[in-house]
Amino acid sequence: MDEMTERPGFASDNHAGVHAAVMEAVVAANDGHAAAYGGDPWTARAAESFRAHFGPSARAYPVFNGTAANVLSMVMLTQPWQAVVCAQTAHLHVDECGAPERSGRKLLTVGTPDGRLTPELIEPLLVRIGDEHVIQPRVVSIAQSTELGTVYTPEATRALADWAHAHDMLLHIDGARLCNAAASLGVPLRAITTDAGVDALSFGGTKIGLMGAEAVVLLSDDLDDSFKYLRKQGMQLASKMRYISAQLDALLRGDLWLRAAEHANAMARRLADGVADVPGVRITQPVEANGVFAILRPEATARLQKDWPFYVWDEATGEVRWMTAWDTAPGDVDAFAAAVRAELS
Amino acid sequence: MDEMTERPGFASDNHAGVHAAVMEAVVAANDGHAAAYGGDPWTARAAESFRAHFGPSARAYPVFNGTAANVLSMVMLTQPWQAVVCAQTAHLHVDECGAPERSGRKLLTVGTPDGRLTPELIEPLLVRIGDEHVIQPRVVSIAQSTELGTVYTPEATRALADWAHAHDMLLHIDGARLCNAAASLGVPLRAITTDAGVDALSFGGTKIGLMGAEAVVLLSDDLDDSFKYLRKQGMQLASKMRYISAQLDALLRGDLWLRAAEHANAMARRLADGVADVPGVRITQPVEANGVFAILRPEATARLQKDWPFYVWDEATGEVRWMTAWDTAPGDVDAFAAAVRAELS
Amino acid sequence: MDEMTERPGFASDNHAGVHAAVMEAVVAANDGHAAAYGGDPWTARAAESFRAHFGPSARAYPVFNGTAANVLSMVMLTQPWQAVVCAQTAHLHVDECGAPERSGRKLLTVGTPDGRLTPELIEPLLVRIGDEHVIQPRVVSIAQSTELGTVYTPEATRALADWAHAHDMLLHIDGARLCNAAASLGVPLRAITTDAGVDALSFGGTKIGLMGAEAVVLLSDDLDDSFKYLRKQGMQLASKMRYISAQLDALLRGDLWLRAAEHANAMARRLADGVADVPGVRITQPVEANGVFAILRPEATARLQKDWPFYVWDEATGEVRWMTAWDTAPGDVDAFAAAVRAELS
Amino acid sequence: MDEMTERPGFASDNHAGVHAAVMEAVVAANDGHAAAYGGDPWTARAAESFRAHFGPSARAYPVFNGTAANVLSMVMLTQPWQAVVCAQTAHLHVDECGAPERSGRKLLTVGTPDGRLTPELIEPLLVRIGDEHVIQPRVVSIAQSTELGTVYTPEATRALADWAHAHDMLLHIDGARLCNAAASLGVPLRAITTDAGVDALSFGGTKIGLMGAEAVVLLSDDLDDSFKYLRKQGMQLASKMRYISAQLDALLRGDLWLRAAEHANAMARRLADGVADVPGVRITQPVEANGVFAILRPEATARLQKDWPFYVWDEATGEVRWMTAWDTAPGDVDAFAAAVRAELS
Repeated sequence: MDEMTERPGFASDNHAGVHAAVMEAVVAANDGHAAAYGGDPWTARAAESFRAHFGPSARAYPVFNGTAANVLSMVMLTQPWQAVVCAQTAHLHVDECGAPERSGRKLLTVGTPDGRLTPELIEPLLVRIGDEHVIQPRVVSIAQSTELGTVYTPEATRALADWAHAHDMLLHIDGARLCNAAASLGVPLRAITTDAGVDALSFGGTKIGLMGAEAVVLLSDDLDDSFKYLRKQGMQLASKMRYISAQLDALLRGDLWLRAAEHANAMARRLADGVADVPGVRITQPVEANGVFAILRPEATARLQKDWPFYVWDEATGEVRWMTAWDTAPGDVDAFAAAVRAELS
Repeated sequence: MDEMTERPGFASDNHAGVHAAVMEAVVAANDGHAAAYGGDPWTARAAESFRAHFGPSARAYPVFNGTAANVLSMVMLTQPWQAVVCAQTAHLHVDECGAPERSGRKLLTVGTPDGRLTPELIEPLLVRIGDEHVIQPRVVSIAQSTELGTVYTPEATRALADWAHAHDMLLHIDGARLCNAAASLGVPLRAITTDAGVDALSFGGTKIGLMGAEAVVLLSDDLDDSFKYLRKQGMQLASKMRYISAQLDALLRGDLWLRAAEHANAMARRLADGVADVPGVRITQPVEANGVFAILRPEATARLQKDWPFYVWDEATGEVRWMTAWDTAPGDVDAFAAAVRAELS
Repeated sequence: MDEMTERPGFASDNHAGVHAAVMEAVVAANDGHAAAYGGDPWTARAAESFRAHFGPSARAYPVFNGTAANVLSMVMLTQPWQAVVCAQTAHLHVDECGAPERSGRKLLTVGTPDGRLTPELIEPLLVRIGDEHVIQPRVVSIAQSTELGTVYTPEATRALADWAHAHDMLLHIDGARLCNAAASLGVPLRAITTDAGVDALSFGGTKIGLMGAEAVVLLSDDLDDSFKYLRKQGMQLASKMRYISAQLDALLRGDLWLRAAEHANAMARRLADGVADVPGVRITQPVEANGVFAILRPEATARLQKDWPFYVWDEATGEVRWMTAWDTAPGDVDAFAAAVRAELS
Repeated sequence: MDEMTERPGFASDNHAGVHAAVMEAVVAANDGHAAAYGGDPWTARAAESFRAHFGPSARAYPVFNGTAANVLSMVMLTQPWQAVVCAQTAHLHVDECGAPERSGRKLLTVGTPDGRLTPELIEPLLVRIGDEHVIQPRVVSIAQSTELGTVYTPEATRALADWAHAHDMLLHIDGARLCNAAASLGVPLRAITTDAGVDALSFGGTKIGLMGAEAVVLLSDDLDDSFKYLRKQGMQLASKMRYISAQLDALLRGDLWLRAAEHANAMARRLADGVADVPGVRITQPVEANGVFAILRPEATARLQKDWPFYVWDEATGEVRWMTAWDTAPGDVDAFAAAVRAELS
């Protein structure tokens, strides 16, 4: 079916396929009958893997996709009259077709230079607390790595968690690319989550090489098990959950998550390095994970897109986004960097 | 991982695994990069398969599970002040943890002897039309086959569609087991859907042997493409959709759907025949698809459940439900029937 | 503007006007400036009156109408995955155009002979507790007096409260006609609410002679003040609240509530007595509050309706509903009873 | 009850009372029985008054408050996957405790210098039209007069309407202070609504001297009568509607709306003139309706607030808001202006 696939490019990490080891795990899970809705042994094993990474209190609830992981986390962490604070660039705000609002939750957005929130940036939103005319901020939701390819250090995360808790708020991570962030920082997953005071997490598997598997992971002991109802009511309870859990377990049990993330990150770094000195290309964000943001002439962009899949990030400025994946080939990176150089010379 | 699976029983058709051919299709889809969110060739092929079965107007939208297929169909077909009429036994009412209501839709339920609605049963709900104090019935949603293992003939379906249309209403099918119904009736899928006047359909793949793949299929030309927004906002748009579409295509392209359904139905028939003459067992519903409903003594049920997975359907009456699947072995049926016979002698 | 009004009849207690004393209180409240949104002295006085009747823990939140009092109470008392149990005849289910469901709450309805729920009737709903596929019952909501003109004794209310609490549930009263019930029983308002273990209450003022004023009254100490946000978000926070609070205070401060209710009840009794021996009239429900239900020939009904406003309750059986109000004149009752007698002779 | 009221100040136009003529109309409406839910003659007369002002196509639906008028308008004008564009200062966004989002609608906010939107300011939001990942803009909602006391001319309104319609969008006015705007411009109400191409309107009565009465007014012929269901389901259908309709009719039938608005506007002008030359006071917005915005030293503000009710608008800049009402006394304006002058000297 070779003719069906597209040229590997830099459009999105979800254009990539599935790791061979993950596919093997899925095939292996296809073994006779198993209890439905998570009562199967694969789900129990995945839960164990999550606890190994995130600590004994971590409770993982597999769901189908990242939209759901984020939206259902928001519903879990708030009452309807409580708001979620996020960056103006947050996927939750920009790319979910209003899914949070459809679930009755209001977002309060904050402009940032690089996709990262800080206590200082959020502080001004804390007005009219206790005033019933105003939605009450309750959750800070950050993306790790961010939509702009930057990461939060453990210290920066801890600072947000401490600030949130001091104001009777909670800290949530949209971890669609959590593995990339941990790999970039060279720390275990729990260093930027559980150990940094994070209350709840959307753990992303799809972008790091699963077929379609994410999980809401509750970390704070104050959060109870009622999430199981929210998941079912939120239309995210898989009947044959074993095929999702087997993917998550395959990713987390060994070091696949780390190898995949390190590779993707390295490819972004290689691409950034490859075009850094090209006149007419300006890298706009620190390259800390698996994305490169750059501004180049729109005509050059248009011509490059004929051969290489990638997206324009900001039509107004001509900024483009180049994403790398677990399977991005160094040769493709080099070829693309050369194409950029040729185009702009 | 043999030790991880349970003894094949009669608890649910979603305890079964995945067809080898389907798994092969999933593995084959893992071939390089592909556009995300349905822009891939596998999704295009699946769309073609749906049109082959349901006619050129059929537009299929893959989703993750049956809860979503049903709930999002309801949202598509109604305004918030319009109600959905369904049987009191409908999955939508009984087993979705209030998902339809969470999406703001009210169900009006109707008691039935065998899970099947008829115009005569629904008619009394058509009161106070145009009265703003009363939610206005807009959709009739039927399960095919029903939750009680019965089926609607093409004629019965057409009668409901005609009645609905005559009252400015629409007909929807919860087709979690649509293949079983068509196989039972010996008719093509379109005979009990498109050709019978059905407006929209939840097509079920998971229970007939997929890993996790369903689709909302819009049949009426009056329904527009805005469903794409509802699917995304409803948290059911898969990024790596190719792995879902490949399953649906594998099921529908050849005759796998039919063979799987015929086998499951035959196993239910075999089980019913095997226990029909056992004293103390009363079959309570016509066995028309892949479920057998029977009343036996609660103590007998409890002892049988120690060895064989199955569910009690109605605690009050002692009615049990035995579901068969595409992979139910004749030997297991015979062994179970023998166990029932032994238990009740 | 005499020519604008209709002949006083028996259609609904909300066709009646407003007590002179209430109108005077509204006029008196129109005195200069006052803080908005309930920060005014009239609201403080009304709060005091509610505490006088319902005990020191009672917290009253004025709202505009009964739909909102009931729906917002349900939202307050439940999580989205928890259900409300009510009678099949409940206003909440039948006459609110799906407002509870629009707010994301599912109702579980129970058939009753006379509009009254009992623990025995509800008990069968308590199945699959803890099962995430099933919405979890959390609130029992009863109407006092019921939509069928019957009342719950303090003992019957206490039995429901005790049963609810024993099952980790709460008891709510739709008290659109609470005054009528208390007057009928000859007990204080708190005897059938606070003292009977009721957790929360929709207190109805409009049907007993206010212009448009109801209140959600939280009785259980376990319910916190977050209701203030739900009221605002639920679009029920009045800016010039003083005009609503003044009405409630005028009703409750003296014995106006009691006199009004006793009169309305007496008129229903008088009407029932007046037609009891008319051949062809069958009173179908105990006449315990301000409604009379009766079955008569549809042709007779149709002719009577030409002169007297009233509604058919059940088209199928020919049952009609005759409601009396605080201002129903004995002469009108007698004239109507005579008309019924004449029509059926 | 003189001791209950507060000193008339500049906190909000909803601290003011009710016009004598309006109170008389309410009292006059208290005349015997009348059909409920808007079937009464007062509602018919009010509908006529609305048509007189807004043209023969105008359909007015009385509701209780402005929150509801705005939120239910948004629900009427959009599908769940369509967004509402409004100013960052919009009441809808800032002061409704998330009511629009609770109803499932997302707001897209735009920064403005003076509370006024223009096509140029909105244009950048029109990206990714047809892309299912992005909520689709459908309504532009403007406040007239704005929350900053500025007004839109008929031409500015028409420019927005034309722009909206050219982009398959609709124009809505939050007219909580529509009368003030028309009076300020010296034009009839329809000049800035119907005749300027506005599709739907929240007409505000409460702030201009009613007890509590607003209306959703549908102007475009493309909008059908299904709003009646949304109003009921939205918990905003008054049973004794006559008392609300009588207020609206009293305001609109003669020229009360105009006199009240002209007075309030003149008082704002008088206040602005009275403090314009006070050193340390900077008027920050054009004074075009009944609000004055000014920056003064926080300590001065704090001392002034001891004697005079008014609100700080922006804690960060020290900007305050002074609102005038239909009943603001010239003497109070002069006394307050003198107090400001004395405080800042």
